[in-house]
Amino acid sequence: MKALFDEYIDTINSALDGYFHPEDSVSPRLVEAMRYSLLAGGKRVRPMLVLEFCRICGGNYAEALPVACAIEMLHTYSLIHDDLPCMDNDDLRRGKPTCHRQFDEATAVLAGDALQAEAFSTILGADLDDGVKAACAGILARAAGTAGICGGQMLDIQSEGILLSQRELGEIHRHKTSAMIEAACAMGVAVGHGSDVQMKAAVSFASDLGLAFQVRDDLLDTISTVEELGKPIGSDAQNQKSTFATVMGREACESLVERKTESAKEALRGAFSDTAFLEWLADLLAERRN
Amino acid sequence: MKALFDEYIDTINSALDGYFHPEDSVSPRLVEAMRYSLLAGGKRVRPMLVLEFCRICGGNYAEALPVACAIEMLHTYSLIHDDLPCMDNDDLRRGKPTCHRQFDEATAVLAGDALQAEAFSTILGADLDDGVKAACAGILARAAGTAGICGGQMLDIQSEGILLSQRELGEIHRHKTSAMIEAACAMGVAVGHGSDVQMKAAVSFASDLGLAFQVRDDLLDTISTVEELGKPIGSDAQNQKSTFATVMGREACESLVERKTESAKEALRGAFSDTAFLEWLADLLAERRN
Repeated sequence: MKALFDEYIDTINSALDGYFHPEDSVSPRLVEAMRYSLLAGGKRVRPMLVLEFCRICGGNYAEALPVACAIEMLHTYSLIHDDLPCMDNDDLRRGKPTCHRQFDEATAVLAGDALQAEAFSTILGADLDDGVKAACAGILARAAGTAGICGGQMLDIQSEGILLSQRELGEIHRHKTSAMIEAACAMGVAVGHGSDVQMKAAVSFASDLGLAFQVRDDLLDTISTVEELGKPIGSDAQNQKSTFATVMGREACESLVERKTESAKEALRGAFSDTAFLEWLADLLAERRN
Repeated sequence: MKALFDEYIDTINSALDGYFHPEDSVSPRLVEAMRYSLLAGGKRVRPMLVLEFCRICGGNYAEALPVACAIEMLHTYSLIHDDLPCMDNDDLRRGKPTCHRQFDEATAVLAGDALQAEAFSTILGADLDDGVKAACAGILARAAGTAGICGGQMLDIQSEGILLSQRELGEIHRHKTSAMIEAACAMGVAVGHGSDVQMKAAVSFASDLGLAFQVRDDLLDTISTVEELGKPIGSDAQNQKSTFATVMGREACESLVERKTESAKEALRGAFSDTAFLEWLADLLAERRN
């Protein structure tokens, strides 16, 4: 499993590094800011899900690489904008200054804007059938819009200082986190020409994995260290943000992560013959320290 | 001509009004901010170009309506972000408070982000062939990214307080303004299944029209009134921004608008049989007061 994991990480990082060359660009500064955030590390979970779902549908995962890079561009844009002073006002991301701290606010807004546009450009310029390109770009656009990360982030901001129920928190993160993980899995199935049954199973897996991922994220804000996490810990409590950890407590969170990880894995069986890597990855994410 | 113009405006405004209903949305506030800016008026030049190029290629312009709405969504997002405090810090747009003044900065960033995503979603969800959808979304994405409005806006910001040459100004606006006008015309040809010759003529028309449009815009900042323009006048000079008006002077600007409008019209002849509306529109824009 680890060998395929490493192969995916290397392939994704090297493909991402191939985009946006300052020397060919209208504005080198803009492209430097985009590359700064895009190549700052990160778990590459979303692009990896694209590649693996393509592969287990019987596709050649190399064909899905532009789509995988596109979702990482879109995810990176959302992080850059979430970190802005008018949003979460964060100084550190992945152990480095956030984009607006390293550059400036205007550059960070534009780097995010451009990464969103280039995500679509990357899919639509890929060497894939028009039907696959239109399907993938449509999946990504829906997950990026009002019913996806933008709607989720707006709810999140509006909830600052308010004590939320577990149900309300789930609603926020279904849009803010799970939508993009669902899009990753669905796009992988689309490139791999998977069946309707496989598409349904992939989205169900992603929905459970997305919730487990977010609950683990909230837990890490309370149990991890700055060194492990690459960003300040305890910042959720400081910002008076309700999180799964503050609302449910540590033990209930740990049990929820475990249950959702199991149901995610369960959703795959029957629809795919080779689920070993995704099951291993789901466990890895459930136990991660950063 | 005026009858078709009015028909287009009504069709576009009523179609735009059909998108984004607060009551069906994850976050009503987000959708209200999007609608506030999207329905604040505006000349609707870009969507009108989409519809008219579709029509003169022999297409049914109603089919191009989602694509027309998409480019207005994308244009509106770019205005919302350009107005932000960290960018041009404008308080008025189209005679109303800018989005971040009416709502707040975080909401304005997210409303812009969501309008960009929904622009792509609108094209990709349209009832058009996959090939046409992929072509249009690809055209829009390229015009929106590093080689289009984001690259142009970054150059524009970096140039504040610097005296630019006419050539450097032209370079900024080729990306910041003309790219999106070219995208509008190209998408209209794509939906109307126009020929390669027609595509080339449309882009050439758009390139000249885009420059004339921007030069006229800069002129209006010096010769118009707040009431006519719906935003403060003289703000370019105040922000120490080089514009065509400050660099070339009023008379040279007026002559450039005239020359570029003529060459835009000239580019259409031969490729299209029915160029009357576009020629009339080009003249209207060259003489506009807002």
